[in-house]
Amino acid sequence: MGLPYLPASSSAAEVSRFRLELEFNGAGYVGWQRQDNGPSIQAALEKAVAGMLGEQTTAVAAGRTDAGVHALALTIHIDLEREIAPPKLMAGLNHHLLDEDISVVRSAVVSGEFHARFSAQNRSYLYRILNRRAPPSLDSGRVWHVGRRLDHEAMANAAKILIGHHDFSSFRAGECQAKSPLKTLDELRVERDGEEVHLHLKARSFLHHQVRNITGSLQLIGCGTRDADWLKEVLEARDRRRAGPTAPAHGLYFVSAEYQP
Amino acid sequence: MGLPYLPASSSAAEVSRFRLELEFNGAGYVGWQRQDNGPSIQAALEKAVAGMLGEQTTAVAAGRTDAGVHALALTIHIDLEREIAPPKLMAGLNHHLLDEDISVVRSAVVSGEFHARFSAQNRSYLYRILNRRAPPSLDSGRVWHVGRRLDHEAMANAAKILIGHHDFSSFRAGECQAKSPLKTLDELRVERDGEEVHLHLKARSFLHHQVRNITGSLQLIGCGTRDADWLKEVLEARDRRRAGPTAPAHGLYFVSAEYQP
Repeated sequence: MGLPYLPASSSAAEVSRFRLELEFNGAGYVGWQRQDNGPSIQAALEKAVAGMLGEQTTAVAAGRTDAGVHALALTIHIDLEREIAPPKLMAGLNHHLLDEDISVVRSAVVSGEFHARFSAQNRSYLYRILNRRAPPSLDSGRVWHVGRRLDHEAMANAAKILIGHHDFSSFRAGECQAKSPLKTLDELRVERDGEEVHLHLKARSFLHHQVRNITGSLQLIGCGTRDADWLKEVLEARDRRRAGPTAPAHGLYFVSAEYQP
Repeated sequence: MGLPYLPASSSAAEVSRFRLELEFNGAGYVGWQRQDNGPSIQAALEKAVAGMLGEQTTAVAAGRTDAGVHALALTIHIDLEREIAPPKLMAGLNHHLLDEDISVVRSAVVSGEFHARFSAQNRSYLYRILNRRAPPSLDSGRVWHVGRRLDHEAMANAAKILIGHHDFSSFRAGECQAKSPLKTLDELRVERDGEEVHLHLKARSFLHHQVRNITGSLQLIGCGTRDADWLKEVLEARDRRRAGPTAPAHGLYFVSAEYQP
């Protein structure tokens, strides 16, 4: 039976590399990476591949996500021996993922040179704050509830301080494994969308907890507890103890990674 | 202690009437109305009132919702003997509702003449269809998943046939208790929002399952299985067996009820 796709690149590789985009609700998972202490997205996906095709594979993601963090489209790649059309792979994996809170939303065959982690040019995150008196019911577990009215314009203005190339030590988790605290934050927008305040962030890469620590600090500014001058001092102090609290995982979404066309 | 609100109207009533708006995820409930076969929104709310104030009350809603149907802002009223400021009532009820998928999003004191059901001038509903190949993970249980590409413009055009005053017998559930199948549908818009197709409906009142039966029929038109002429025939036939299937409850949202200012 002729399959409607081209084998990966012109090499004599015996495997084909597939790029997949995953959407998931991170509530029930220890994060992307396979761990001993609970179910991971990676393990669930690899199990689905094994269940569908009988192949053992190691999935590589654009980025690790923390426990409880969600994704709209986390790019991953897997190598498969079996020849299979991408739409069929997607449908089969989704069938095997029915009991999980994970779905494959796009699939494609890519060159063996494509690497979900190393080829990524940047990553985008969204942080959702539900900013109203009443706690969430429909979006329970998917937004951070802040009952006190946030001044999103004050947050947006202060956020500009963090855009660009900086030493982000003040927003870095103790367990961060990055070699350097120097990162370039390309985008940090704060916008109100009805009852929600959204933070949109984009960078080539992020430090561990960087998005959640930035969010926790900007929230203090939104509440009027702190101001932009304080944020500037925090950034310059290069000391995690000076910044605000770490915002909870369940408001954070990995939005997407971008690659060279 | 002086409470910052005015007692209801100028009558010598011993109770105050409160208007509340409820948001809820209907997944775990048999619907609004108290029933023997499972947890209802009404029972949960009345229990929260009893837990907070020690008062037995009967909550009246703008409309009954089916099992599994969600709400963004279902208007209800309750009568209370205790004097209490609306923000305090809302906060206390939300505290007592923490284990439920229900939150009180607005509260106000109203005149004793206000009636959540009888004073409502119209009701609005939203039906969310997730229209993509992949099943939902983040919005699991909150959208109807239709994998086949829907022609939302064909749906929008056909929908115009149903707007206005008609005998909606073809879209009425067998168990419907309304005296007449004649209803006036003021609004029926079909719009695409990215991967979703949304149906917006507004009417003074609806027949049982009317929104879900209209959605099920329009979905057949979106798939190309049926066309606008068929929908016209269905409407004129006044026969439930002629229309499409009943769309699932979990895609339906009670949006709001409107009242005379």
